[in-house]
Amino acid sequence: MHALVTGGAGFLGSHLVRSLLQRQAQVTIWDNLHTGREKNFLAVRDQIDFHNADIRFTTPENAPTSRFGKFDVIFNLACPASPPHYQKDPVYTWETSVLGIHNMLRLSEMHGAKLLHASTSEVYGDPSVHPQPETYWGNVNTVGIRSCYDEGKRAAESICADYVRFKKQDVRLFRIFNTYGEYMHPDDGRVISNFCVAALKGEAVPVYGDGTQTRSFCYASDLIAGILALSDLPREKYDGPINLGNPSEFTIAELVGVLERVSGKKLAVKHFPLPADDPKVRRPVIERAQKILGWQPQVALEEGLKRTLAYFAGEI
Amino acid sequence: MHALVTGGAGFLGSHLVRSLLQRQAQVTIWDNLHTGREKNFLAVRDQIDFHNADIRFTTPENAPTSRFGKFDVIFNLACPASPPHYQKDPVYTWETSVLGIHNMLRLSEMHGAKLLHASTSEVYGDPSVHPQPETYWGNVNTVGIRSCYDEGKRAAESICADYVRFKKQDVRLFRIFNTYGEYMHPDDGRVISNFCVAALKGEAVPVYGDGTQTRSFCYASDLIAGILALSDLPREKYDGPINLGNPSEFTIAELVGVLERVSGKKLAVKHFPLPADDPKVRRPVIERAQKILGWQPQVALEEGLKRTLAYFAGEI
Repeated sequence: MHALVTGGAGFLGSHLVRSLLQRQAQVTIWDNLHTGREKNFLAVRDQIDFHNADIRFTTPENAPTSRFGKFDVIFNLACPASPPHYQKDPVYTWETSVLGIHNMLRLSEMHGAKLLHASTSEVYGDPSVHPQPETYWGNVNTVGIRSCYDEGKRAAESICADYVRFKKQDVRLFRIFNTYGEYMHPDDGRVISNFCVAALKGEAVPVYGDGTQTRSFCYASDLIAGILALSDLPREKYDGPINLGNPSEFTIAELVGVLERVSGKKLAVKHFPLPADDPKVRRPVIERAQKILGWQPQVALEEGLKRTLAYFAGEI
Repeated sequence: MHALVTGGAGFLGSHLVRSLLQRQAQVTIWDNLHTGREKNFLAVRDQIDFHNADIRFTTPENAPTSRFGKFDVIFNLACPASPPHYQKDPVYTWETSVLGIHNMLRLSEMHGAKLLHASTSEVYGDPSVHPQPETYWGNVNTVGIRSCYDEGKRAAESICADYVRFKKQDVRLFRIFNTYGEYMHPDDGRVISNFCVAALKGEAVPVYGDGTQTRSFCYASDLIAGILALSDLPREKYDGPINLGNPSEFTIAELVGVLERVSGKKLAVKHFPLPADDPKVRRPVIERAQKILGWQPQVALEEGLKRTLAYFAGEI
């Protein structure tokens, strides 16, 4: 099996690449290194075919040829995913999500390849239904500061659904909830990396708002197992987007406590104003993944956080 | 002033073209005649510069040159807008909305032109807030049979908002609620054209569901006045999307009664199942348009329907 992983130099992308190689797959990476880093796949550099390619403008017609030939499966993970990264150049983010999926769908059609597309819990926005099942339609500000990502991802889901319904292509959507682990960018800007880096530097951990907002944190290996299970699913069993995330929900204030236990340090907290349109709660309903994929997360937050903290200690 | 009207051969586009010509503007039309019709602008054919252009693939680099030179303002109205039309080829619809706005934004940037983009009440989906103010975030199924249009338009709003906020471009969004009038396509497929055509042919009028769902119908001349008022607005007064529509709300069953009065005929009704994700209610809050544009609809439904029925009588 030959897999293309777009965003393969990123946090989750590089995890996926390693897991695919463990399964004896041939792997091609397309990444423009916007937020991805070559060091993330350096250990497997000689096993993969890497191309510095930007999916906004990489069409089937101008795509770089892989030394492994045609693609059997495409994992479309390329897109800045943390608010500081995706808000830095919102037009770029929108283009990556929207033009990117359009190009990857056409590519998958031309190669006869299965396409797995990374959607996100951000399609639920600031949810008015809690926890969030896949049938919830979401609460997103179309013109807000998060919309380049949220609406870009929503529009990507929409064209994917019509490639299934109208074009009869094999396209599968998964919605990633907060994920953490080794190979995260130290400047990722989301809470786990912020907290770990601050704790390791002996600085106060930054809390936005009063810390009562909740998140559900999934360890990277669990998430990758879910993506691979979805890829392995017989085509006829796919029936729409699947939430992948850990349903254990923590307030940000509780996360401080967990990190104190894991790091063995008392942590000071510094409060900042809550950004606009920030979700107040976030927790996946994962019944669909449990039922269809037989999947559920295995790694508890303390355990995952211990490994992640060790990784960040080597990074900074 | 030189205006580009994309979709200028369509129902609203052709109204806008005539109104712009009355204001002594130079007008270029780009339309691929997918749902637009040359007959809609035939009466003004010698005054305008028409190009058969598809905004999905018309970039600033390959755009046809207008005999009137650079554009001062771009009105982006090109997109199939009725469910039967936009669902016929959902990938085409998505591309028109999403790739189209991306191309038109780049074009407006290159020409230094103001861009007015036609968004839609469909961004509110099947609304859980009634009536709908611009601050309502909507209730749209990302993977439903209407999402090619709804999510395409939502993503278009998002990139427009970031062209304002991030790129400091002059881009203005208006959200069109149900509009009717002369130059509608007889096969438009929405309720006013369905009802008028059926009444004129002596057929039963088709009602989807039990007819208790509501719509708010704006006559075309009112809508065009709103678009032009938004175009005339000093740039610094624009502060986000503006609803344009008529807040007089009717159930579909009530509309049958109005049409009976206007046509002087007793109408038979034929019921059909309600399509998936169909909005149950739809009515604009137009306070923002009233306040910022000094605009409000003038033409009552009976009067507008009388004129529209006369138009359809000539069409079929």
